[in-house]
Amino acid sequence: MKKIIHAIQDEYPDEFAHCFGCGRLNEAGHRFRTGWNGDKTLTIYEPKQEHTAIPGFVYGGLLASLVDCHGTGSAALALHRKNGHEPGSGHASPRFVTASLHVDYLKPTPQGTALNAIGTVEEIHPKKWKTSVEVFAGDVLCAKGEVIAVVMPDTFRT
Amino acid sequence: MKKIIHAIQDEYPDEFAHCFGCGRLNEAGHRFRTGWNGDKTLTIYEPKQEHTAIPGFVYGGLLASLVDCHGTGSAALALHRKNGHEPGSGHASPRFVTASLHVDYLKPTPQGTALNAIGTVEEIHPKKWKTSVEVFAGDVLCAKGEVIAVVMPDTFRT
Repeated sequence: MKKIIHAIQDEYPDEFAHCFGCGRLNEAGHRFRTGWNGDKTLTIYEPKQEHTAIPGFVYGGLLASLVDCHGTGSAALALHRKNGHEPGSGHASPRFVTASLHVDYLKPTPQGTALNAIGTVEEIHPKKWKTSVEVFAGDVLCAKGEVIAVVMPDTFRT
Repeated sequence: MKKIIHAIQDEYPDEFAHCFGCGRLNEAGHRFRTGWNGDKTLTIYEPKQEHTAIPGFVYGGLLASLVDCHGTGSAALALHRKNGHEPGSGHASPRFVTASLHVDYLKPTPQGTALNAIGTVEEIHPKKWKTSVEVFAGDVLCAKGEVIAVVMPDTFRT
């Protein structure tokens, strides 16, 4: 299984690294990791046994979570690059939150296989980025998604 | 906190009751329960401590999961009623899967509060139902969603 060497989530400031989906400091969470793969973004994740929809197939809510964090991570990667940085360079990354999430479930997603979420990210405003996502199980395109992510607003500060 | 007395998930056949989101037989899952509340559908869930986005706020992927299973559950409730049955009557319920899921995140969703997902369900084809969902934390509308659910096709049989 291919690995993400330098993930954008490694660069989130500690206080914003507790996300259940992708926070490296959330031990109960999925700890999705998102990096560049050429000009696409990539998150690789093998669902756990309990992430069942119908036995044998992956739960759609887990796929939605994967698409969600892949989208915020992709937006962060893209803005970080625009700012002149790459993950691994030790610069704190921008942190995005999700404005909207859409997932089309195309085929039942088999369990027991690593999933690759592949993203194409584009700027629609300096603080608002769109990621189109394809989720593959092996060679099979199982889901397509779209995430609109925005730079984290101050309303997320407690 | 209001409770769902008769949930449609109680009526899913055992073999289709393992969903990570709403399967009563998935001990690691959320075990969402969806019932009628007048002519609306209702799922009540209090996220766990670990379901964090940014500390203090609920993870968007958990909200997507809630909307997802609320949508399939609402579709099952509606078709079950069309077939002359209510949850609690002991008749096996139809089982839906998600064709598409959309969530708009309107406001940060506070942790430590029970969430109410309220659905309006309509038939768009005998095997395809749409549920519009509003997710409230107390009186605050935090997210809106839409789920297109279809009667489980044979491709989900292993």
